[in-house]
Amino acid sequence: MTEMGANRYGKESIRLVKVDKRADRHEVRDLVVDVALEGDFATSYTAGDNALVIATDTMKNTVYALAPEHLTDAIEAFGIVLARHFLASPQVATATVTLQEHGWERLEGVSGPAPDAFRRTGGMIRTARVAAGRNGVVVESGVADLVVMKTARSAFAGFPRDRFTTLPEVGDRIMATKATVTWRHSGEVVDWDASYAGVLGTLLEVFADHHSESVQHSIWVIGTAILERRGELEEIRMSMPNLHHWLVDLEPFGGENRGEIFVATVDP
Amino acid sequence: MTEMGANRYGKESIRLVKVDKRADRHEVRDLVVDVALEGDFATSYTAGDNALVIATDTMKNTVYALAPEHLTDAIEAFGIVLARHFLASPQVATATVTLQEHGWERLEGVSGPAPDAFRRTGGMIRTARVAAGRNGVVVESGVADLVVMKTARSAFAGFPRDRFTTLPEVGDRIMATKATVTWRHSGEVVDWDASYAGVLGTLLEVFADHHSESVQHSIWVIGTAILERRGELEEIRMSMPNLHHWLVDLEPFGGENRGEIFVATVDP
Amino acid sequence: MTEMGANRYGKESIRLVKVDKRADRHEVRDLVVDVALEGDFATSYTAGDNALVIATDTMKNTVYALAPEHLTDAIEAFGIVLARHFLASPQVATATVTLQEHGWERLEGVSGPAPDAFRRTGGMIRTARVAAGRNGVVVESGVADLVVMKTARSAFAGFPRDRFTTLPEVGDRIMATKATVTWRHSGEVVDWDASYAGVLGTLLEVFADHHSESVQHSIWVIGTAILERRGELEEIRMSMPNLHHWLVDLEPFGGENRGEIFVATVDP
Amino acid sequence: MTEMGANRYGKESIRLVKVDKRADRHEVRDLVVDVALEGDFATSYTAGDNALVIATDTMKNTVYALAPEHLTDAIEAFGIVLARHFLASPQVATATVTLQEHGWERLEGVSGPAPDAFRRTGGMIRTARVAAGRNGVVVESGVADLVVMKTARSAFAGFPRDRFTTLPEVGDRIMATKATVTWRHSGEVVDWDASYAGVLGTLLEVFADHHSESVQHSIWVIGTAILERRGELEEIRMSMPNLHHWLVDLEPFGGENRGEIFVATVDP
Repeated sequence: MTEMGANRYGKESIRLVKVDKRADRHEVRDLVVDVALEGDFATSYTAGDNALVIATDTMKNTVYALAPEHLTDAIEAFGIVLARHFLASPQVATATVTLQEHGWERLEGVSGPAPDAFRRTGGMIRTARVAAGRNGVVVESGVADLVVMKTARSAFAGFPRDRFTTLPEVGDRIMATKATVTWRHSGEVVDWDASYAGVLGTLLEVFADHHSESVQHSIWVIGTAILERRGELEEIRMSMPNLHHWLVDLEPFGGENRGEIFVATVDP
Repeated sequence: MTEMGANRYGKESIRLVKVDKRADRHEVRDLVVDVALEGDFATSYTAGDNALVIATDTMKNTVYALAPEHLTDAIEAFGIVLARHFLASPQVATATVTLQEHGWERLEGVSGPAPDAFRRTGGMIRTARVAAGRNGVVVESGVADLVVMKTARSAFAGFPRDRFTTLPEVGDRIMATKATVTWRHSGEVVDWDASYAGVLGTLLEVFADHHSESVQHSIWVIGTAILERRGELEEIRMSMPNLHHWLVDLEPFGGENRGEIFVATVDP
Repeated sequence: MTEMGANRYGKESIRLVKVDKRADRHEVRDLVVDVALEGDFATSYTAGDNALVIATDTMKNTVYALAPEHLTDAIEAFGIVLARHFLASPQVATATVTLQEHGWERLEGVSGPAPDAFRRTGGMIRTARVAAGRNGVVVESGVADLVVMKTARSAFAGFPRDRFTTLPEVGDRIMATKATVTWRHSGEVVDWDASYAGVLGTLLEVFADHHSESVQHSIWVIGTAILERRGELEEIRMSMPNLHHWLVDLEPFGGENRGEIFVATVDP
Repeated sequence: MTEMGANRYGKESIRLVKVDKRADRHEVRDLVVDVALEGDFATSYTAGDNALVIATDTMKNTVYALAPEHLTDAIEAFGIVLARHFLASPQVATATVTLQEHGWERLEGVSGPAPDAFRRTGGMIRTARVAAGRNGVVVESGVADLVVMKTARSAFAGFPRDRFTTLPEVGDRIMATKATVTWRHSGEVVDWDASYAGVLGTLLEVFADHHSESVQHSIWVIGTAILERRGELEEIRMSMPNLHHWLVDLEPFGGENRGEIFVATVDP
């Protein structure tokens, strides 16, 4: 007889923009929200009975409906409200809300900062993931799509060589990566914005200052520094795929490449 | 003191095209291969010591170097060879090779099938994932990016209504989805191509014939039918996100929408 | 004094899916429509006066509102209806409607072709562009995203060599391209579907059969063959960017590449 | 007899990263370059004779080979060198070089700005297009992918209403756009960086300050301000597609939307 395994369903990519219209200026929040539920949905699969299936359209509506009152602070706080809302339905065992926040910066007008005009900053995304279950709430914060580069103090040597190895050992290379980093807090109540700024600042500073023997080494050096400085963190996870930059051989053209001319293998 | 958790690294998106040049005709294989390793790489992180770090460039070379002799059958078989190759390094605990195969179909010339000309078929990707560890090899086969649609015999009703629910109950709607399906075989030796064809054929046939009460219900009906008909499978996992098609209200324009005119909410 | 140059505005990416519900079976049409208008809109720019500015939201509504009655034949015919509709506003000098049609094929059920279940075919897009102006209507038909490959009978040699040239001359290479082709008809009334099938069939057949000295040469051979066979065409335009496939050097690994193993430089 | 029309060919997406390694700090340049040639290439089409066909691979090599000496200033200057280089081949009638520059900003280390570490800024791309022909060189500068938003002082009313119009007139809406702007200079010798900064600064300032009656109106107000302040420009072209933000109806949920909660219709 066929058994059902774990299952989850939900709504992805709910696009929410909130303009907080204060007396003297507006503030813009630009979010992408995903909602996923796990729980007792077996009869919806096996019997086509939807009595316990919260519609994904209702999930979307809920995000918009709760935004005026509850999207007033960090995305972590909004995520906690949303996840607890969905957990209130008894058939839900775990409600996971994932949030991305895209940045906008205020434009300058002739007479100073514009109260109501912005440009998208690009360059990285702030993220949060809130999982509410019967045993409590787990909050992870993070940053994604953060592209950084070291043009010196990065090496890669001493790796094993077999018959398929052609990569030369290098003491000086470009290291570039699009980093995705998430961290878990030890308590539920945190000054999310301060913690985010502290983690990001440490990440960028240590990335700038350290000498890298490999991407793995960089991950360790950066990760341990963050954990040491930010006592509110319990765990950090880092994904830093190498964006390879290869030296171009200019000798066929009568030139010399003094470590200056690279072909990037990934589109910007 | 900081402890290291699980870690993995590898090379993604290795693009391999092989042309098998037979006497009477060519055959084309078009693959994207990812390699990921887990194992004893702690000192590369903590001490910047790369003595055990197989370079990702070597991974890429290995895929190309082993293709002439070993990419002669299904991608599952090539993946097994690759995964076992990497597992032969003692520091590797698990080698995971993920493969996507893109389809090409032979063109017709004036005097029959062309021996050497093809067009990409698009429409879906065949996938495989091979994880080789000290306890053996686990092979999953799959299909991805398979977009299917039912224009009748699809309902969604009886779901719970709360104050944020606006979705009407419908007995007749479009159900469209981009399906990603993977399945695990009970043994290591399988006629991969026959199994793939059998699973895909059942999936499409049951999708075409069944009456759907929800996406969840469709997943169950299709999944149980596949497990019943394909005894070589132990497990199947299905992801079928709804590609919503909403009825357009034509009444403001003096028209009537007899279930014919839809706005698709996702780009093709 | 500042002068205004040419200007146009419009609505892009209107997603229309029409299900033609016949007694015995359904038919699916899946379109992306763009509308662009040129004409006497100067005061909307210089004075902020919108009295003549047809809202882009109205353009979108119009596409949906006219679809039940007028999307019954080829996209060229629907485009002509739409373009003429917008041209009926006297401030419009030229109305250009661009249409893409994505293919779906009928699924097979246990007892034959399903009346109401489909899969997206992928692999190419049928296109049309209708420009209606005071002097008449110009219709272009086309095909886009058609990826084809020749694994033999393709050379590239005899090109000029300067100090920056390193490419070897080759008598046998892979030629692959993502073709975009558009053609203009000599009259307004055409059997669009037959013409499209004829042009596409000739394109694929000649691509399969010809010997290519370069992409330019292929364009000429294919283009002239189409114009010769399809008397209803006045002009054809072809864009065939090279999707490079480079031979992998296997010698460092003790292997030999007999024209079989390639790295594709573009993702599928 | 078939006649050949206009034709062009070239190489797209040449990825060049240059690290200028100065004594005290590095500077990073991150470019995507396209090269396109028009000229006397007829025999390559009609006779498969490549004697005049500069290989696209040679174009790519040329960009890398000339970068050490010539990519030392603005992309416009590098583009002029490249375009003139290709024009030196007598069969070339026009050589067009298009350049995109992606921004990187210096990171801060513990003891100040890092000499060798950077992050990608995102948020916009600086562009240039140089067309060199027998009658001289035309340089266009520009900015692309600049996403800006006004949360007040933006209206859209007074537009014509027909039977397909449902859009309400609004005196207060979000206007957001992804702007692509290019401008042509009156002379060949320009302080490119100063001109770019001046145009961009004016664009953002006027966008922030002006009251918009429509996107068209905004284009005119911004464009005329730029032409007035930047005497070195002869012409400016602006593309500002509306990124729609629709008010969410919160009434079904017992809420009220005081112009605060929007659904964005385009992904960030």
